[in-house]
Amino acid sequence: VRLYSGLMEPAAPLFRQLFESESCTYTYLLADPDTREAVLIDPVLETVDRDLQLIQQLGLNLTVALNTHCHADHITGTGLLKKKVFGLKSGISKHSGAAADIQLSDGDSITFGKHCLMVRETPGHTDGCVTYVTGDQRMAFTGDALLIRGCGRTDFQQGSPHRLYESVHQKIFSLPGHCFIYPAHDYKGQTVSTVDEEKKFNPRLTKTVEEFVKIMDNLNLPKPKKIDISVPANLVCGLHDI
Amino acid sequence: VRLYSGLMEPAAPLFRQLFESESCTYTYLLADPDTREAVLIDPVLETVDRDLQLIQQLGLNLTVALNTHCHADHITGTGLLKKKVFGLKSGISKHSGAAADIQLSDGDSITFGKHCLMVRETPGHTDGCVTYVTGDQRMAFTGDALLIRGCGRTDFQQGSPHRLYESVHQKIFSLPGHCFIYPAHDYKGQTVSTVDEEKKFNPRLTKTVEEFVKIMDNLNLPKPKKIDISVPANLVCGLHDI
Ligand SMILES: [Fe+2]
Ligand SMILES: [Fe+2]
Repeated sequence: VRLYSGLMEPAAPLFRQLFESESCTYTYLLADPDTREAVLIDPVLETVDRDLQLIQQLGLNLTVALNTHCHADHITGTGLLKKKVFGLKSGISKHSGAAADIQLSDGDSITFGKHCLMVRETPGHTDGCVTYVTGDQRMAFTGDALLIRGCGRTDFQQGSPHRLYESVHQKIFSLPGHCFIYPAHDYKGQTVSTVDEEKKFNPRLTKTVEEFVKIMDNLNLPKPKKIDISVPANLVCGLHDI
Repeated sequence: VRLYSGLMEPAAPLFRQLFESESCTYTYLLADPDTREAVLIDPVLETVDRDLQLIQQLGLNLTVALNTHCHADHITGTGLLKKKVFGLKSGISKHSGAAADIQLSDGDSITFGKHCLMVRETPGHTDGCVTYVTGDQRMAFTGDALLIRGCGRTDFQQGSPHRLYESVHQKIFSLPGHCFIYPAHDYKGQTVSTVDEEKKFNPRLTKTVEEFVKIMDNLNLPKPKKIDISVPANLVCGLHDI
């Protein structure tokens, strides 16, 4: 159903959520249903072929592959995608320290047809974490800044619980309450949340900043298994050693 | 956004897709955002507490728990849910042979507030397989009759490739092309498809019936690990031995 008002509103973007089960990572496909231009957020090396097959079957033209940050738990699919898709551009925050065709800053936008993603810098899990928000503010891809009833850890890769708390409160919780939250990971089979829900039920981000810092400083999590391969590889777009 | 035309259209149902990773099962939560009445499709025993917490946080009133069929790979959460949620009714096809409060037939509907699910019998994987279709025909919950680029096996539990082929073609492929397909399982991290996509790209159901039967008769799959516990338990609403 398309709505025609004074201005013609664009048809909702085509949207797919995809899951990589080893690292529990979500990859997101967004496309303009008319121009067929498509964007992938957080592709994973191991699932590049699955994603490309879907893109081909849907008749889409993948123009940009984005990362929400330099991941420590898996190798990004961006570099391999660039080898397989002629003209594809990669994008990541300029504060990530990682190589990419497009170095993104707060307020930048990535357009695909009549749609766009706006960049909001949300550092704290890493220095170069961003949240991508659709132009209509109906969907936010929060990376590891905000997870469903959780958040990314802050004990490595420039992690700072103070910065993360500020990022989530200022840049994500300021979005409309019905805005859907699509995180980079989920470990419990949850697929989506909303700003309102996380403002009410996130067990960490609903606390005071002091309590939040205390929680984050006492998680005592083991180091991610793949951090020593993933981070160096992701700094060069996932193409380290392949 | 609500649309007001001659008749007031109801707000879109609240919708959540949930995943159980051991059996790769999807559970679906649907609710009327105004009356807060909610329905769960294919709950899994192991994730009942996760689902109930979400239902409680969203302020919903779970009235019906449905199964698409008598599962062989996991134990349904229906029985445990009935113990935990006062007044909850269970529903399954009358052809499943399983106990339930509501024994469903083709054409039946399950209402939740201003919304409903229509029952389409889609036997073939088992005798008692049904597909639940939302009143507006935007979403179909196909169980194991139609999976994303696949379908349920037909080599046990009254399986019949002929019946399955007929069910999918007559009862699912006849839905609008843009209707979303939400299956009971996915093993590759895919979350959703559409009728159009499966009509074009399903590697089995796009074949002739003869070719389909040959494919299904030669899958040589191992028996599901949990079949000997799951089927007897699911025949009594998941409450066997617990
Ligand atoms: Fe991360
Ligand atoms: Fe099944």
